[in-house]
Amino acid sequence: MTRAELTIAEVRLTPILVADPPLLNTQGVHQPYTPRLIIEVVTEGGATGLGETYGDTKYLDIAGPLAEMMRGRSVTDLNALPGLAAEVCGDSPAATAAGAVDVGGLRGVQTADKLRLSVLSGFEVACLDAWGRATGLPVHALLGGKVRDRVDYSAYLFYRWAEHPGGRGEPDDWAAATDPAGVVAQARRLADTYGFRSFKLKGGVYEPAEEIAAVRALAEEFPGQPLRLDPNGAWSVETSLKVADELEDVLEYLEDPASGTDRMAQVAARTEIPLATNMCVTTFDEIAEAFTRGAVQVVLSDHHYWGGLRNTRELAAICRTFGVGVSMHSNTHLGISLAAMTHVAATVPNLHHACDSHYPWQTEDVLTERLAFDGGAVAVTDTPGLGVELDRDRLAALHRRWLDDDGSQRDRDDAAAMRVAHPEWTAPAVPRW
Amino acid sequence: MTRAELTIAEVRLTPILVADPPLLNTQGVHQPYTPRLIIEVVTEGGATGLGETYGDTKYLDIAGPLAEMMRGRSVTDLNALPGLAAEVCGDSPAATAAGAVDVGGLRGVQTADKLRLSVLSGFEVACLDAWGRATGLPVHALLGGKVRDRVDYSAYLFYRWAEHPGGRGEPDDWAAATDPAGVVAQARRLADTYGFRSFKLKGGVYEPAEEIAAVRALAEEFPGQPLRLDPNGAWSVETSLKVADELEDVLEYLEDPASGTDRMAQVAARTEIPLATNMCVTTFDEIAEAFTRGAVQVVLSDHHYWGGLRNTRELAAICRTFGVGVSMHSNTHLGISLAAMTHVAATVPNLHHACDSHYPWQTEDVLTERLAFDGGAVAVTDTPGLGVELDRDRLAALHRRWLDDDGSQRDRDDAAAMRVAHPEWTAPAVPRW
Repeated sequence: MTRAELTIAEVRLTPILVADPPLLNTQGVHQPYTPRLIIEVVTEGGATGLGETYGDTKYLDIAGPLAEMMRGRSVTDLNALPGLAAEVCGDSPAATAAGAVDVGGLRGVQTADKLRLSVLSGFEVACLDAWGRATGLPVHALLGGKVRDRVDYSAYLFYRWAEHPGGRGEPDDWAAATDPAGVVAQARRLADTYGFRSFKLKGGVYEPAEEIAAVRALAEEFPGQPLRLDPNGAWSVETSLKVADELEDVLEYLEDPASGTDRMAQVAARTEIPLATNMCVTTFDEIAEAFTRGAVQVVLSDHHYWGGLRNTRELAAICRTFGVGVSMHSNTHLGISLAAMTHVAATVPNLHHACDSHYPWQTEDVLTERLAFDGGAVAVTDTPGLGVELDRDRLAALHRRWLDDDGSQRDRDDAAAMRVAHPEWTAPAVPRW
Repeated sequence: MTRAELTIAEVRLTPILVADPPLLNTQGVHQPYTPRLIIEVVTEGGATGLGETYGDTKYLDIAGPLAEMMRGRSVTDLNALPGLAAEVCGDSPAATAAGAVDVGGLRGVQTADKLRLSVLSGFEVACLDAWGRATGLPVHALLGGKVRDRVDYSAYLFYRWAEHPGGRGEPDDWAAATDPAGVVAQARRLADTYGFRSFKLKGGVYEPAEEIAAVRALAEEFPGQPLRLDPNGAWSVETSLKVADELEDVLEYLEDPASGTDRMAQVAARTEIPLATNMCVTTFDEIAEAFTRGAVQVVLSDHHYWGGLRNTRELAAICRTFGVGVSMHSNTHLGISLAAMTHVAATVPNLHHACDSHYPWQTEDVLTERLAFDGGAVAVTDTPGLGVELDRDRLAALHRRWLDDDGSQRDRDDAAAMRVAHPEWTAPAVPRW
């Protein structure tokens, strides 16, 4: 192989809409379809690498010019990506609208930096995939090699409706889950189907007492298995402490009970339960204060918004150095991102918690073969690159759906989706309880 | 290329002795010869990668069994190195003798962890070199690509004698430097020969007033150019503050004025001059306390004792996250390590200081062509691997010297070397002044 073969000849961007079930959270409900962006990086040597990231308009606005700038560069030239993205964003109104709240408000405060990193993460993964395919190496090898052969994932439980209001979207065969019994039934099916052994409930939907009851019911059904509850920062400090106190004996960790480093630090100071976060620490800039104040005990990394697999490893190194645990966050994503998560997770020595994965809820994908959970884990492949193959027909069909959309689904807005059923709904202010 | 071609077929270890001038520090004087270990990792595909690290007996004791364990593994399998080294060290008395003071006592407290990391760093560099050669990529590309084309180095000034006591060792044409005029003359020659534009004086040798005078003389000779002074922790807090006060207007940073995080934090709290360190923060375990207390403002990374180029990048990421600067430490080393330093330095965005380099003092090397400083910088090569070639005749000659040694030079001991001239000498306790 020559270096020239690793030069990027072409970058293809394909926005798509994928089916998303009516999953509830504190901001509202998932839309019938959610936007994703599929990135293909094609090298001069003929290797095609795949990446995936958020597909809302503001991400596409950055991805387009960034793709142009990638042409002619090497897929190995990853340290240059932040500079290129910054250059692109200098002209992007979306990227400079720092302080605006993100899709669903579930990722912490939105900043230009985070938006930029989310976009470039998809390019980084595609470059690594292409590099690996071109040199016969799995992506984990390009990250220094796996330290485990399987990556454990947890069951991601949601309060949900049986179907979207008005029967919109794609139907599935899951029942509604709006009470403890429904949550337990959902958990049982996920455990039986995929072998998950730890369980995370997306909370912040009902009053805390109701969600405490659901976790209690899970503890009874799955005694001794790790449980997590995540209200997306919906609670006050006092409510957080009350919930922590009531669930102390069964929770592996409590995720983002309250919003912001200050509230999290107050909660952490008064409970023994570790606090996890993917809202209060979501950028490198937020780490120093949170770690110094002991506001979080586990960071839920997400390679999308931390800026890629290599940044995820750096985040893990920082956590290791400061005695903070690492787990992995997951948002609506497809198999390309699950493969990427699995590769990087396989290389992080201090990954002591099962990672979240939204994947079981995403029944549509762009791969010829979906990734499989066996015993709750995804096997770490040694196939070159990410080890996944694009199904061009599926990609075209999901892109067609994006083209045909009336504009209502191209930007995720959980509060707007909720208003279809409840016209008076506005995303509640925090603390909600 | 197939993955099998990256499998390690053989690891060759060659301990050598290289000439070292009579450079003075607070512990004593450099020996006439210093031990280094040259590591060659040969792949099944026929690529040979080069690494270099400390060559004292306790390092060789670990390197031998580690080399055995590397055979049959992939050169990409770098995340496994710490585990392998730990396995080796389980049986090594040297490695478990934690708390013992290191060679010269100039690297901070010696621990089993640090010893292990120093050894594996040489293997990591050799693997990266082999991997790069096999795939046509420079080492910086394997680290995500260079963000600069040249890496700046500083002139490393030493108080020194003209020759070793009794005329031992290899003569050179440098004059003695034992006063301000001698230091300035040395700096002038280094600047004229190599183009260095910043200057570091190894202090802790004479009384502080004498070293202050030397720095003042440098400031006069090189107005406005960055100056550094490093007494290797020889001073008390009060002395450190007195020196800081007197040199505030000319120092870029003050390096390890006092020993230990506690004293450094006390100094840092009372001076505006940034404090740099390669003694108080030398392992990941020491970071949290030092950063939280604001004890250091610049970490002098050294890929040898931080465990390789990838760990150096992680260290830089941590520093970036906590607003701490990064520069680079250098000990007696040859061209393989200078090339490795240059590759990793080229990839670190937040490298805002010229790196130290001992290389001008090492007139002997194992390369067919020495690395060159141009305008004080080393150009970042795009040649596959490290971009350096081994001179087997030179290697054999320096190994022969190691074989023929009577045992006096195989373990660096600056205090013992000083006793040749001053039999009553013992390495002084700190604070010395």
